[in-house]
Amino acid sequence: MQLGRLNHVGIAVPDMEAALAHWTGVMGATHVHEPIVIERAGILIRFLDTPAGGAMNGTQVELIQPLRADSTVSPFLAENPGGGQHHLCFEVPDIHEAKAWFEAQGKRVLGEPRPGAHGHPIFFVHGDDMGGILTEILETPKEPQP
Amino acid sequence: MQLGRLNHVGIAVPDMEAALAHWTGVMGATHVHEPIVIERAGILIRFLDTPAGGAMNGTQVELIQPLRADSTVSPFLAENPGGGQHHLCFEVPDIHEAKAWFEAQGKRVLGEPRPGAHGHPIFFVHGDDMGGILTEILETPKEPQP
Repeated sequence: MQLGRLNHVGIAVPDMEAALAHWTGVMGATHVHEPIVIERAGILIRFLDTPAGGAMNGTQVELIQPLRADSTVSPFLAENPGGGQHHLCFEVPDIHEAKAWFEAQGKRVLGEPRPGAHGHPIFFVHGDDMGGILTEILETPKEPQP
Repeated sequence: MQLGRLNHVGIAVPDMEAALAHWTGVMGATHVHEPIVIERAGILIRFLDTPAGGAMNGTQVELIQPLRADSTVSPFLAENPGGGQHHLCFEVPDIHEAKAWFEAQGKRVLGEPRPGAHGHPIFFVHGDDMGGILTEILETPKEPQP
């Protein structure tokens, strides 16, 4: 496998409005995407764009707020109540080949490939098998992300 | 302030050789830069490139290993012995304007601007003031990074 694009950095936040105030008001983000709710995971997501090469197509920042106590980010926020860096997401050309690759390396793939925030297939690999980094793998979107 | 380029994600690692084996052998990184030692911080650094727009000029991954017990990443590794996501580094056009900006926002800037791993001026902002994210601010290099 060849290292793919760093699609986004995932950041868990206890309070989306406070996080947006920080990222727009302090950090100066200008391109904030519409909210996305992932019911299965119990989370609310906002993506922010970062600049790269004169455009806003750099690695995105993904803010993730829990919508219920058993959300996928609730255990992380229990340990880090103020929020923090939750995962890194890298792109691959083929999600099924990537899953087979990580499994062959003895890494714990967390579930089958499934649609991620933008509908493109993703899976996660256990952070304890990845140098402490919960790693999301995303099949490179065929069209630019919205 | 406008949000700048996500220059790199900083990852603390207990063992650089094991980390390089993971990032090259499992994640498939192909562009690994020469080691950098920052004596002041007591750390060894390796940068890895990620692809973007057909080149290898995406957000970099910075692996950071302590060289002594009082290194700048030792407290993080004491809490996360297997390693993990340590900081995010964003670029700004002017390091002194950025320092004044964060201070005006009531954020704790950790020390004066100083040369970072590539010799360009940097400072850090306290993670507890930044949604749990230790944030490095880097003055955009006038020439491409090596």
